[in-house]
Amino acid sequence: MKLYGYWRSSAAYRVRIALQLKGIDCQQVTVNLLKGEQGAAAYLAVNPAGLIPALELDDGRYLSQSTAIIQWLDSEHPQPPLLPDDAFDRAQVLSCVYTVACEIHPLNNIGILNYLKSELGADKAQTLAWMTAWFKRGFASLEASISAAPYCFGDRVTMADIFLVPMAYNALRFDYDLGSLHPKVMAVYEACNTLPAFGDARPENQPDAVPPSY
Amino acid sequence: MKLYGYWRSSAAYRVRIALQLKGIDCQQVTVNLLKGEQGAAAYLAVNPAGLIPALELDDGRYLSQSTAIIQWLDSEHPQPPLLPDDAFDRAQVLSCVYTVACEIHPLNNIGILNYLKSELGADKAQTLAWMTAWFKRGFASLEASISAAPYCFGDRVTMADIFLVPMAYNALRFDYDLGSLHPKVMAVYEACNTLPAFGDARPENQPDAVPPSY
Repeated sequence: MKLYGYWRSSAAYRVRIALQLKGIDCQQVTVNLLKGEQGAAAYLAVNPAGLIPALELDDGRYLSQSTAIIQWLDSEHPQPPLLPDDAFDRAQVLSCVYTVACEIHPLNNIGILNYLKSELGADKAQTLAWMTAWFKRGFASLEASISAAPYCFGDRVTMADIFLVPMAYNALRFDYDLGSLHPKVMAVYEACNTLPAFGDARPENQPDAVPPSY
Repeated sequence: MKLYGYWRSSAAYRVRIALQLKGIDCQQVTVNLLKGEQGAAAYLAVNPAGLIPALELDDGRYLSQSTAIIQWLDSEHPQPPLLPDDAFDRAQVLSCVYTVACEIHPLNNIGILNYLKSELGADKAQTLAWMTAWFKRGFASLEASISAAPYCFGDRVTMADIFLVPMAYNALRFDYDLGSLHPKVMAVYEACNTLPAFGDARPENQPDAVPPSY
């Protein structure tokens, strides 16, 4: 299998965590978002939507959308399971997944921030206020959903943790005060990061990572 | 069961379609978005995130996030199934679901449009250009994924159709030229709307619908 992604892509980061948790070997192919490679013909043949990540299966077929990819991985490689067996519990986990995937990430990714700047003339302060608004709304919702420890739903890692961590990583990168505002979210983030699977998936540990001085 | 929603909410519309397809009786409770009822204490007790829809189960527990609700309905009321059995096919359907739920809807809902106007001073033309940009990106991606007829994945309705229809309805409401730009999406929209389940779920057929003159 090949994962088309980028070290700093939050959606690719989710898939990397899932692959690591499952112990699946997967070649990483860099699609450099800063160079616009996601819109180049070579990548559009992989994913016509021009979005990363995409997964190339061993039989040459492709899958797109990180959430669909992770659910596919979970059904094809069921150990360890990323969702609970009970239907209600599963829906609770997925509700957290969609809080990140539908309420925060779509609004705060690089494509949208570029649009705000170029088309609506948003300055730095306005862009930061925009990001903060959706971080606050989404993380507050997650905070209200977390009733267990060390992970979102107790002592087993679920898809909720896989989605929380990359979003928290992004928020911290933009100096969002996650620890004060949403202490349970921060505690889950820290607990996950003690696990090798989450450490190996971190952006700065990817082969295409660029040092901070860049 | 009770569905907390609003006639014009695209996310509630999805759940209504799923309920109708499954033949499930469900009481509808209106949360009037124009009056800000989603932020009132009464509703925050149902869903602390202040977002609709939410589903109240017969045992008094609540579920939020339309995608999680529909997946729960599909596991508790498996007939007719909303996802294919084959893992790859299922991932393809979910990829379309997430294209709507993560690439279009989060950007073009009323809360975001209000923010653009009040915080970034976007005028009508800029707001329309914003909506058009994400309609175009998302529907183009769906168009590339549809290879069958009459529905997205052939002769069985799937979750992809349940998500496509409310988004297409919204786009048409804003005079987006769906038929010319994405003819396959438009054909699926029209085919779905010949089915009673989709007709019954349409915004204008809800008890809380307000006539166009409003």
